[in-house]
Amino acid sequence: MSVTFARGFSAAGLSAGISSVPGKSDMALVVNDGPLDVAAGVFTSNRFSAAPVQWSREVVKGGHAKGMVINSGCANACTGAEGLAQSRKTAEAFAQAAGTTADKVLVGSTGLIGELLPLDHVLSGIEKGFPQLAPSEEAGVAASQAILTTDTQPKRVCLQVDGYRLGGMVKGSGMIAPQLATMICVLTTDAVVSAKQADAALRKATSTSFDRIDVDGCMSTNDTVVLLASGASGITPDMEEFTATVSSACSQLARKIVGDGEGSSHDIKVSVTDASSEEAALACARAVAASNLFKCAVAGNDPNWGRIVSSFGTVPEQIAPYDPAKVTVDINGIRVCDGGAPGQPRELVDMTPREVHVDIALHSGSESATIWTDDLTHEYVHINSEYES
Amino acid sequence: MSVTFARGFSAAGLSAGISSVPGKSDMALVVNDGPLDVAAGVFTSNRFSAAPVQWSREVVKGGHAKGMVINSGCANACTGAEGLAQSRKTAEAFAQAAGTTADKVLVGSTGLIGELLPLDHVLSGIEKGFPQLAPSEEAGVAASQAILTTDTQPKRVCLQVDGYRLGGMVKGSGMIAPQLATMICVLTTDAVVSAKQADAALRKATSTSFDRIDVDGCMSTNDTVVLLASGASGITPDMEEFTATVSSACSQLARKIVGDGEGSSHDIKVSVTDASSEEAALACARAVAASNLFKCAVAGNDPNWGRIVSSFGTVPEQIAPYDPAKVTVDINGIRVCDGGAPGQPRELVDMTPREVHVDIALHSGSESATIWTDDLTHEYVHINSEYES
Repeated sequence: MSVTFARGFSAAGLSAGISSVPGKSDMALVVNDGPLDVAAGVFTSNRFSAAPVQWSREVVKGGHAKGMVINSGCANACTGAEGLAQSRKTAEAFAQAAGTTADKVLVGSTGLIGELLPLDHVLSGIEKGFPQLAPSEEAGVAASQAILTTDTQPKRVCLQVDGYRLGGMVKGSGMIAPQLATMICVLTTDAVVSAKQADAALRKATSTSFDRIDVDGCMSTNDTVVLLASGASGITPDMEEFTATVSSACSQLARKIVGDGEGSSHDIKVSVTDASSEEAALACARAVAASNLFKCAVAGNDPNWGRIVSSFGTVPEQIAPYDPAKVTVDINGIRVCDGGAPGQPRELVDMTPREVHVDIALHSGSESATIWTDDLTHEYVHINSEYES
Repeated sequence: MSVTFARGFSAAGLSAGISSVPGKSDMALVVNDGPLDVAAGVFTSNRFSAAPVQWSREVVKGGHAKGMVINSGCANACTGAEGLAQSRKTAEAFAQAAGTTADKVLVGSTGLIGELLPLDHVLSGIEKGFPQLAPSEEAGVAASQAILTTDTQPKRVCLQVDGYRLGGMVKGSGMIAPQLATMICVLTTDAVVSAKQADAALRKATSTSFDRIDVDGCMSTNDTVVLLASGASGITPDMEEFTATVSSACSQLARKIVGDGEGSSHDIKVSVTDASSEEAALACARAVAASNLFKCAVAGNDPNWGRIVSSFGTVPEQIAPYDPAKVTVDINGIRVCDGGAPGQPRELVDMTPREVHVDIALHSGSESATIWTDDLTHEYVHINSEYES
């Protein structure tokens, strides 16, 4: 269902000839049929933000959008003034077809950095796509497929809470790192919320979901998460509950990104507990999730805890105060490191499940944090030494 | 020649049965025959520093050492009080054989983290090794071979300057990151220097050599660089020149580590120029050198400059102020990114040489810095998902 699960939204997914793979579905359209046209967005903090990010960041400042056009196959990033003009022209074409103005149209692009869009194909794709717009399940599914790049499967979410609905789709598989994964995510809801409420809920939700996954430590130029609200349910939700709903949707989609991490054979949950602060726990968890050596070991089904402690051993004491001689590390429930020294034999750890749980206790407080990541496989290298589309 | 190039040093390399590979040479002994016994050392900043690091750090505080025993095949890291007792017993055995006290004996270990040493083998190895000690070229070569783990070749250096000599050996191939590569390095000189002078020269030298290479972003628990001075040449060097000589030796050895990076097919030199400060240049260069996506692209001979700018685009503006619209990036002499947008066609870049030069100009000042790294290959993953010794 994805973005059409919430009432008041139409979508389409089609092949516009943007991707270098002939016939690949590479354009998604999402239209908010109202009555509201509320929009909020969160974007990459990369200083080389792509043209569509620069464009859409301005749009959400107004708090309103009629819809969004997303293309895969080209990121339109690091393309200078000409790239920004392309995003504007894309928004203008969508606006004309939708009977609105360009400043109410969000644009998203994903693919290779440093290449301009084949603009003719984008514009003819919008023209071709509008008649296909539908509020149907099929249309939502088609849109969720059109935004994929190296993803092996579409990622969707549908939540129904107290009379209102929230649907969503996301793409993301590589170039996934803290401060938003490399991804484009569209969430839709038929709840009645203001732009300010949507923005607050979305920021809270992304900070504990997309900001807490790390496939390969690489931050993208194109990260975009938008939340569109149609108000079509007529239901005005309790804001705490609404924020929890948006958070749940984001967490589900973030988890799916990790599950589809490029070439991955394990999903790794790194939890740090008993820390002096959440910041300390996060810093340690992120350090482990960023370790190539540890991630290679997991790929080889090796519960190499030395690579875990040596990773979070690099976090400065000012950030994470703890005594290395008190730390414990469990892998899949086996305490392999006890008091900074060898614990149970590593041979006891069963590394065959897809999910690997690393539990680190710092014994310096009561705060905690979790980061999800993937292992580092031959296939990841293969994908990323070949990728050029 | 390695450590025996400088007069006043004897060495040996032998198989002590520590490595899991039967018959592998796994113990190196280095003895300073004087007349001086000056020693300086620089060690990992990892908070889980290994037992031999904890031991040797105390030894160099005194500024004097009779020699060093290094084993490969086991890191003796994260091994608690028992591990530290093993390092002490190792030093005591060496001291007894050398006619000195344990507080004058440096210890180094490299290999798997979280395993205790086979102490009997270490002690019998020292007993067996002492009669083999010689000031010969062969003995220096044997020592340089005994310290290797996943290295494919020994790494040595010999410098002769104004009547005094400096020799050295290093091991290091993976777990190589800023703030000392993962490595054990022994430098010897017959110059007449004080412990304070040796320490100052060594700190300066490592800060611009081993601290500026990054194979895989992973910092070790066992990094150790020591400088031993015998004074046997009778020459008291100019300190500026001596520091330059030690720096040259460290740079040569650091470059050899990158050249032998685990599974690597390219050595990558990332230079950032026209930066507002050296710190800014370093931060940007380190960000690029740490990008798995960029390193995979290089493995695939793909001059993917988008992955370069998206990497240093993550460095906060407070650390590295620059205007993304003014940045240029050259790969092997071709300006692929000009003013933050596409420059020359990427097809013009010849990626076949082993050395890849990335030159980034920030156009925000006149400072610069260089980091050396490797590409990320199938072979790296293979080595690190199989490694267990």
